[in-house]
Amino acid sequence: MTETEDTTPSFAEIRALLAELPGPSLEAQETARERQGHLVKPPGSLGRLEELAIWLAGWQGRHPPRLERPRIAVYAGNHGVAACGVSAYPAEVTKLMVQTFIAGGGAINQLAEVAGADLRVYELALDEPTADFTQGPAMSEEDCASALAYGMMTVEEGFDVMALGEMGIANTTSAAALCHGLFGGAPETWVGRGTGIDDAALARKRAAVAEAVAVNRAALTDPFELLRCLGGLELAAIAGAILACRLARLPVVLDGYACTAAAAVLFAADPHALDHCVVAHRSVEPGHTHLLEKLGQRPLFDLDLRLGEASGAALALGVLKSATACHQGMSTFAEIGIGEA
Amino acid sequence: MTETEDTTPSFAEIRALLAELPGPSLEAQETARERQGHLVKPPGSLGRLEELAIWLAGWQGRHPPRLERPRIAVYAGNHGVAACGVSAYPAEVTKLMVQTFIAGGGAINQLAEVAGADLRVYELALDEPTADFTQGPAMSEEDCASALAYGMMTVEEGFDVMALGEMGIANTTSAAALCHGLFGGAPETWVGRGTGIDDAALARKRAAVAEAVAVNRAALTDPFELLRCLGGLELAAIAGAILACRLARLPVVLDGYACTAAAAVLFAADPHALDHCVVAHRSVEPGHTHLLEKLGQRPLFDLDLRLGEASGAALALGVLKSATACHQGMSTFAEIGIGEA
Repeated sequence: MTETEDTTPSFAEIRALLAELPGPSLEAQETARERQGHLVKPPGSLGRLEELAIWLAGWQGRHPPRLERPRIAVYAGNHGVAACGVSAYPAEVTKLMVQTFIAGGGAINQLAEVAGADLRVYELALDEPTADFTQGPAMSEEDCASALAYGMMTVEEGFDVMALGEMGIANTTSAAALCHGLFGGAPETWVGRGTGIDDAALARKRAAVAEAVAVNRAALTDPFELLRCLGGLELAAIAGAILACRLARLPVVLDGYACTAAAAVLFAADPHALDHCVVAHRSVEPGHTHLLEKLGQRPLFDLDLRLGEASGAALALGVLKSATACHQGMSTFAEIGIGEA
Repeated sequence: MTETEDTTPSFAEIRALLAELPGPSLEAQETARERQGHLVKPPGSLGRLEELAIWLAGWQGRHPPRLERPRIAVYAGNHGVAACGVSAYPAEVTKLMVQTFIAGGGAINQLAEVAGADLRVYELALDEPTADFTQGPAMSEEDCASALAYGMMTVEEGFDVMALGEMGIANTTSAAALCHGLFGGAPETWVGRGTGIDDAALARKRAAVAEAVAVNRAALTDPFELLRCLGGLELAAIAGAILACRLARLPVVLDGYACTAAAAVLFAADPHALDHCVVAHRSVEPGHTHLLEKLGQRPLFDLDLRLGEASGAALALGVLKSATACHQGMSTFAEIGIGEA
């Protein structure tokens, strides 16, 4: 990430961005809501598809909302805590999976094709994992801010929605530590089996999360400090991407636990920071359910996914496409000569 | 439906078909299950997408399963009970909506296009509604068997899955009567607001369901008699289509309450009759949740839909496509050089 260093914003500059987040276009939202009321269906009968069409119009700032050019962005990073034996796979798997995505053999490649989405995979210094956060902060402020800035930079013009996801061995440990740090509660609340660890690894993972928060106690008062101390490069990049999407009028689809935990950092800084985001699915990872409650987010579906890679977010693109297609393509009652109920 | 009369099977002949329902191909199922275990993901991490791929392989009787040619079939019928004021819309709306589908302006047209699915709409004698079942049986055995046979005939070769749905003003009243007749409980359990009726219409709808079951009490011992007395032409056609799909190795996606209630008739005749069916979504209609419990079916998602028209089933096609795409397109661990966990 050396190319970004000259322009890397400080935490203070990122906080300043949060202070002036744009809201949705109320006009586009209202126009969408009014059109929904005239379409040939009992009012409200398309449920969340109606809400999504209105939400997309508001955050895209246009009517009708469009879902023709979706992008899926997967951020990959490595975690020092992997050395503590908290995952079923060694840290080398992160790079192998990125190579698999590049070769087209990952789940996300197939899901992106079905969704008709552009797919990009961003590697964050896979050979330079974060420090083991059970021993101290995971990152320096410079590295964390640099990853945030890198994530911001990945948000390009010309897309209708960004579906975000991650790949990073041990990053549900980081997600659990972030959630435990942000929301408290018992560490076990936030720790699940991730890739499918056994009881011994689960015990190590719980201990790692408890230690991480204890060791980095000084960071607990500030969300960005928490991200620096307990997060990871790919999670910081996701937080940066979410922020840049807000500024660029791009609605965001969040994937599972690790991705939503990265988003939670922004939520902790400003409870409206995720208003342009929808969570695709409820992960099997139990911490995700608790996190969704904290964020007041209702996921679109629950298909027992626990893969990451933006897999759930990619699936959600079909729902969003369906929402915009109904919104734009359906006839109105007036057009077919039925009085409205 | 005059063209089918000569070959219309009797209830006895349809019962005979139920006695020899084919099961899934265990070989295709096993081959699919084994491949899932080798794909580059933690075992089980694609959750229901894995189960769906295995299920599709079994019921299509081939490996790999395919989802290239989905068909959506919408069956439309009219109900005598509509005259009791149980819907927010008059019975004429059924025909207007069918015309809207033909013109391409319905929700289902847009959803079919997003899903890349072939869409057919089947009208069942819209000018000849069933009799008001609060006064006696809705149909003669001949009409009911004829509608079942018509539904069977609509199942054609060359498709990978059938997504079934319905259109029929007052048919959630028929669905509620069927469920109350099949499963008992208080009538209120099965009655909801359908298209969005007010309290007065809801009271009429509850009374109609209670009366229907009381008046047709003699039918309660036999599922097909129940269908004849409390069902509708489009619901009988759906039951027929489900049966024919089973014989033709076509997995089925069921839509919401009315569609699942039609399927429940077959379930009551044989608890394995719906093993080749998946329910797309949980309808807002409260009876659907009770019905899903009775059938032991877990829907794929809950998007607060209550439209019918196969809208939820069409949305589910994207999930099925994603399941087969991952199953077929993902690399194996061996291919990318990672040992399996």
